Amino acid sequence: MDPKNPRTQLVVGAADMLRRRGLHATSIREVARHSGAPLGSTYHYFPGGKDQLTTEAVRFAGDTVARALQGRLAAGPVEGLRSFLALWRDVVISTDHRAGCPVLAVAVEESDGPAVAAAAEVFRTWESLLARSLEDHGVAAERSRRLATLVVTAAEGAVAVCRAERSTRALDDISVELTALLHAALPGRDE
Amino acid sequence: MDPKNPRTQLVVGAADMLRRRGLHATSIREVARHSGAPLGSTYHYFPGGKDQLTTEAVRFAGDTVARALQGRLAAGPVEGLRSFLALWRDVVISTDHRAGCPVLAVAVEESDGPAVAAAAEVFRTWESLLARSLEDHGVAAERSRRLATLVVTAAEGAVAVCRAERSTRALDDISVELTALLHAALPGRDE
Repeated sequence: MDPKNPRTQLVVGAADMLRRRGLHATSIREVARHSGAPLGSTYHYFPGGKDQLTTEAVRFAGDTVARALQGRLAAGPVEGLRSFLALWRDVVISTDHRAGCPVLAVAVEESDGPAVAAAAEVFRTWESLLARSLEDHGVAAERSRRLATLVVTAAEGAVAVCRAERSTRALDDISVELTALLHAALPGRDE
Repeated sequence: MDPKNPRTQLVVGAADMLRRRGLHATSIREVARHSGAPLGSTYHYFPGGKDQLTTEAVRFAGDTVARALQGRLAAGPVEGLRSFLALWRDVVISTDHRAGCPVLAVAVEESDGPAVAAAAEVFRTWESLLARSLEDHGVAAERSRRLATLVVTAAEGAVAVCRAERSTRALDDISVELTALLHAALPGRDE
């Protein structure tokens, strides 16, 4: 996506609003204001309204994280884990504890609709990337999936706890435990 | 709290709205409607408005879970973990995947205010209960805290993932891994 494209700016702006204030606060009007775009252009680019915009914002956030994760997984599952947690730590710190995960925000405020379906898909994608890397490094398939689920769910929960506590303690704590757990699960343990 | 007390009913109603639709959707007006209470009585009982009502709802949910957790921890930390995860599994199933954790909902939608401070306090209370039980069973203090943080953050993240996926898979997966992890951390492992 071209970051100067006005349509892209609206998707990025929606993702930023989602991670800061959640789904219900992310109206088309607020996203237009937040992104400095005319309200009319928002309806032009997103004829499906808020559902379309928030669904694309969830997918955009999901793809951004997936690309970063995939890149680091080339160095192994433990390196992938570290980069995944570091990415969320950066979000918490760079926003002075004022933002979390836009995908989680959607999943705690709605039960139906395209944005929630996109959120489920994003969680599955992150888990699959981690699970595949563990499997590639010799961990049994079922256990790989369970460990990947533990990593993604703990990271998501920890981001919210860090924000509420205004501290990175929770992410730092789970990082120590999850790193040790993945090391122990990998055959050889020669890393 | 007396469950028939109209003030209590409003707090319980607010907690239910928070876990289903999040903080921004939980207006005083909606809680009154949701609880079948006259709007005037809501302002009478909660002169501090939405901040007061949602803060009390977060504390109510926190205390309810803490009491259940404390009761089961008498049988040891692994039993405490199992009951904590079973409790969240029940929430997801009994609401047909339409509700999650009201404490998490507050933490992903706001960065300031009394409800967020109450959410941070609740997370800390749950973690402390689990950590103390691990310590009492011979796990080092710092590790006990880290493991307790992993349990609480993973459970919170998994509830949101389960809701989005309309499945209990994520909670079931982390249950296997966390049970094994706590067993391995405990000295003796004779359970």
